[in-house]
Parts: sequence; C-alpha cells; structure tokens
Amino acid sequence: MTISRREFSKLGALGLVAQALPLVGQTPSRKIGYCIIGLGRIADHHMRGIAQSSGSTITALVSGHRDKAERIAAQYNVPKTSIYSYEEMDRIRDNKAIDAVIVCLPNSMHAEYTIRSAKAGKHVLCEKPMAISVAECEQMISACKVANIKLMIAYRLHYEPLTLKTIKMIRDGAIGKVEAIDSSNGFNIAPNEWRSTKALGGGGPLMDVGIYSLNATRYLTGEEPTDFTAVATTPDNDGRFQGVEENLAWTMKFPSGVVTSCVTTYGANMDGYYKVYGTKGKLEVDEFGYENLHLTASYRTAPKTPPTKVDETNPERDPKQFTRQADHFSRCILENQPPSTPGEEGLKDMQHIRSIYKAAGITLG
Amino acid sequence: MTISRREFSKLGALGLVAQALPLVGQTPSRKIGYCIIGLGRIADHHMRGIAQSSGSTITALVSGHRDKAERIAAQYNVPKTSIYSYEEMDRIRDNKAIDAVIVCLPNSMHAEYTIRSAKAGKHVLCEKPMAISVAECEQMISACKVANIKLMIAYRLHYEPLTLKTIKMIRDGAIGKVEAIDSSNGFNIAPNEWRSTKALGGGGPLMDVGIYSLNATRYLTGEEPTDFTAVATTPDNDGRFQGVEENLAWTMKFPSGVVTSCVTTYGANMDGYYKVYGTKGKLEVDEFGYENLHLTASYRTAPKTPPTKVDETNPERDPKQFTRQADHFSRCILENQPPSTPGEEGLKDMQHIRSIYKAAGITLG
Repeated sequence: MTISRREFSKLGALGLVAQALPLVGQTPSRKIGYCIIGLGRIADHHMRGIAQSSGSTITALVSGHRDKAERIAAQYNVPKTSIYSYEEMDRIRDNKAIDAVIVCLPNSMHAEYTIRSAKAGKHVLCEKPMAISVAECEQMISACKVANIKLMIAYRLHYEPLTLKTIKMIRDGAIGKVEAIDSSNGFNIAPNEWRSTKALGGGGPLMDVGIYSLNATRYLTGEEPTDFTAVATTPDNDGRFQGVEENLAWTMKFPSGVVTSCVTTYGANMDGYYKVYGTKGKLEVDEFGYENLHLTASYRTAPKTPPTKVDETNPERDPKQFTRQADHFSRCILENQPPSTPGEEGLKDMQHIRSIYKAAGITLG
Repeated sequence: MTISRREFSKLGALGLVAQALPLVGQTPSRKIGYCIIGLGRIADHHMRGIAQSSGSTITALVSGHRDKAERIAAQYNVPKTSIYSYEEMDRIRDNKAIDAVIVCLPNSMHAEYTIRSAKAGKHVLCEKPMAISVAECEQMISACKVANIKLMIAYRLHYEPLTLKTIKMIRDGAIGKVEAIDSSNGFNIAPNEWRSTKALGGGGPLMDVGIYSLNATRYLTGEEPTDFTAVATTPDNDGRFQGVEENLAWTMKFPSGVVTSCVTTYGANMDGYYKVYGTKGKLEVDEFGYENLHLTASYRTAPKTPPTKVDETNPERDPKQFTRQADHFSRCILENQPPSTPGEEGLKDMQHIRSIYKAAGITLG
C-alpha cells in the first residue's frame, strides 16, 4: 500500500477509501475479532457478513437473552465464556480475542455502549444513526479519541461498488454539473417496534431510513447542505408512533447551488432511490437495501450526440455489503488507518438531522 | 346526459368531469370555432389537436407575424380575413365564426388577452400558468363572470385517460390511505427563451413545469396544501436566467397528513413523474408530457396476499391530449356546463405558487 496520507484523506472525503483499500487478492496478516453487542435483526446481517469474511471473525456476543446468545454462539463458534450480559459487558476489556465491537442496539443506547467499549479499549463499529443527539455524537468521538481507539459508523453503502462507481461517475463529470437530487426511503412499520418510539429511536423515519437519502445527497455532491426546510405529519393515530413523526418531507440547499427534495415515512412502503439531475444527463440508483442495487444513467458527452446509457445491477447478495464493511474496518485497525466513515461522518448527519427536525418544528435529543 | 348538477359538481371536484362527459359515440350538434392567440410552440399542439377533432375547429388567428399567420391559416383553412394583429384583436367580437379563443401567449400576457377576449364576448381557454400573479387570476375570473363567458385553464392532464384512471384508483382506495407523494419535472432550458425572464414568464421553472407536480399533488389527494417550504438557487450565471430561479425544491403538507416533496429546474433534463405512496401500496406515473404516459402500481388488496400489479401505457400520440381538452371545452360551451378546470383551478395553483415562492424568499408578481 503506497498511497500517501494526504491522498488517502482526499479519497476519504470523496467516499472512495473502500476503493483505495482493495481486499481482493490480499491476505490480511490476521483476522480481527468482533464482539456483537445486541442480537437483533441488524446484528444478524453483520454476523452473516463476517462469517463470509477472510479478515474478520466473531469472537464474542453481548445480549440480555442468554438462551438466544448461546444458540447464536454455537452457530458462529463463539465460546460460551465469551457471552456477556449488558451488566457484565465491561469485562470484554480482559478478552484478548476481541479487537472491536459492533453496536447493534436501539439508537438511544449507541452512545452509552460506544463509550463503554472505548473505555474497555475496544475499537467501535457503530450502527447508524450514530446516536440520538449531536451532543451524544460529540461525546462518543471524544471518548474514542481519549481511549485511542477507532470509531467507524456503519454506512455500508460507502463500501458498495455500485455506489462508489456512481460517485466516481459524478466526480468525473459524466452528467455535468449537478443541479438537483431527489430521493425517498421509507416503509410501513409494524406495531411495537422500538424504532417508532422517541425513547429508543430518538426520532422517526428520518433518523432510521431518511438518513440514507440525507447521506446520499452528501456523498453524491461531496458537499454539506447549508439550508433546510421540512414538513412533518403523523396522521395515523393507531398507537405505532410514540413521540415521533410518521411522514417527513424536506429540502436542502448546497453551496454549489444543488437543491434536493427528499421524503421519508413509517406509514407506507416507499421506493428507496435517488435521482441525480446534471447539466449533461441524469442517473438513478434504486434500492438503499442489502442487495439489488441498480444504476441507470443517460448522459451526453457532447451536445447533439446520442446519449450514453448505463444500466447496471450489483449482482452481490446480502450479506456481502456487511462483509465489505467489516473488512474495511478490520483493515483500518490492522494498518492503523482512519475509517472512511468515522464518527465525524455520523456527527455531520446528526447535525443535519437536527436542522431538518428544527425546520419541521421538532426538537431532537 | 342525465347526471345531476350536484353529481357533476362532485365529479368536477374529483377531476373526473372529463369521464362524465364522454365524447365517444356522440356527435356534437356543431363544431365550436376557436381563435388561436399567439402562434408559438404550444399553439402548434392546440391547432394540431383541434384539426383532429369532431367538435372543435380553428376559425381565426391572432399573431404579430402576418406571414407566419397566413401560412398557418392556409394550413388550417382559416380565411385571411380572420387573421388579426394584436392591435386589432378586439375586432374578433364581430366574427361570428369565433366562439372561443385559446390564449397561447407568454404568461405575463395571459391576463390582458383573456380579459380583452372576455370583453369581446368570446369564451376563453387559457394556457397555464393562468397568469403571473394571484391578482391577475382574480381579475380574469371576474372579467369572464361579468362578460358571462366561460373560462377554462389548459390543464390537459385532467382530460387524459391514464391520469383519470390513476385518480380513480386512488379514490377507490387501491393503494390505501395516501401518506406521501414525490414528484419532479424540469428541463435544461435553451438561451433566449421568454420563459426564463421574470418580465414574460413571471417566474422560473416552478411557474412553467413545476406547476405539473403541484397540480398533480392536488388532483391525486383531492385536497389543498396548507403548509409550504422551499429552497431556490440560480447557480448558472450564464445569462439564461433573468430574475427567475434556476432550481427549486419544495415541500407541502395536506390536511389529511400527506406530505409531498417536489423539485423543478431549468438547469437539467429531469424525469417528469410522480410517485404516490399509500398504506396498501404505491403507484407511479412517468411523463407529464404529450405522450408516453406510463402507470405502474403495486398494492395488496389484503395483508399477506400477493400484490396486484399494474403496468399500463396510454398509447395515444400527441396531439390527442389537445383534442380531448378542446373538445371538453367545446362540450361545456354547447351544453352550458362549467369546465372541469375553470379559472378557479388556475387561481388555486397561483395562490400555492405564491406560497412556495414566499417560502423560498421570492416575491411573485
């Protein structure tokens, strides 16, 4: 690896670090051992991804359900002695098989368990949204700095090849100067989900899935939004929404003049997509999910020439995105490099989420 | 026609009047004669549409270019004596072959020529946007009322079968309760277009093409928006934009809790589309243009059943929408019925456009 620190930082800013740290054909010196904190749905994706990895392995679990943890431990060859309850979690400090943790808990617990893990000397890969307030994000970054451990936020699409190709196409000027982006992401949430309570989710669909549209506008433009407007409603008074919005639409303005319109919901199954409109053409990526990401583009390299067409699907299946993500963090740990999506990336989204909520008359945190 | 006045009004509110006034298989007692005011691009669509009609015919032209007018007059069998300059236009009063006019002028001239036509005793079909201010719209409605003539705004999609089917599907509950809508419409404008000057266009892409997204959210929900937010930018300082925005993104909130996110531009070629997200499924219509309107929908009639899929294209070619539109107005004139898209429809859009511009810090009119 002969890339300079300066070049690396530049690539990082473009969200292209994953490309700069290719994994294929390189055998890491050892596997990084992960402790999974929280054994819900997202943990399942992480664990299945790591199980397929050559650079990462699962070495410990933290759970409030001993039975479930033992069943999963057996599945992933984790010794029973490396199963911890939340109360005894700080003992992970003494487990040398654990290099890093993955925080898969409800949003409102991200800060506490990231900080406890940092104090136990373990690197932290934390699910997004990073936390439920800007102050918590800042405390997490600070705690990890003090403990001299790495903090990465699980923005898995920053490591997904079709997304990286899309970003590179835009940076290379394929569709000209970007003028506008629109995006939606949302789903019809079931009753009794922690995500639709203010106490555990910290917010509604914006925090949970709208964050994909927000983050996309940032990696697509390479800029930070400066102006925010929003409207939010909660029309379905059916008990599902405890202090959080059901529907939220928002706009943003970026320094170069790009405007974006986005919408998210917990009340309906939405297309997850973004469309990017440039002076020379347009592109669209469908699906923010774990597979079936699909890119279509149409642009003219010169006026009055026939348009260049792109129609490409990433054929990789779930949990490949999670393998790539864990292996990126493992490489960063092994080679002492900063992750492409550090705590600061999560903090920026949280600052913007606060601005969007404020515009909608909602107070965050 | 045995539909009651009350039923008719109700259908009108649902945008379904065109369905209530079927043209197929009914021979109108006579053709309504139209005078085309302004012979630009949109006039060409109107004229070609009317040429294919059984209920409407072109009987006069108003133009500042005598040569062009004579060429077009010959094409549509309009007598030379029925060609008027703008100065002598008030003489249309004396031409019995003219029942109605179609105002195809730049936006800032809609009010003047609608009012002059009304005073000349002619019914008015006026292009959208209806005018460039709320006050002008009110003056137009008032002038037409005083003159006892009909005023219709050319919202051609209110007469387009796939759009009407889409509205009916939503009203019938196919996709459940609507939660959110997103929509875009825009294009990369050429230099020296009247549309990108404040003096003639009255506004930027919102007035010209964003109005399709705005109007769609209204016919799709059957409601009027109550809250508006917006951001606008004009990044391309290349002389094309004279006092109007280049890019504009906006959100709206509706009484039932529907939120919408929309975006429009004069800086890039956009997909013209809307997506409607409901509790039971979603639907999308692509293309606000003159042909190739395409509906896709996917919804569940009961939980856990396989989704019902719709994939349908309106095979009609341009200028069919203009034929339908003119013939609707002709029928309204013959049968003394109110048009489905009267001046009040244009006024409502203009009031909302004013609110959107105000939210973006732009003053209208």
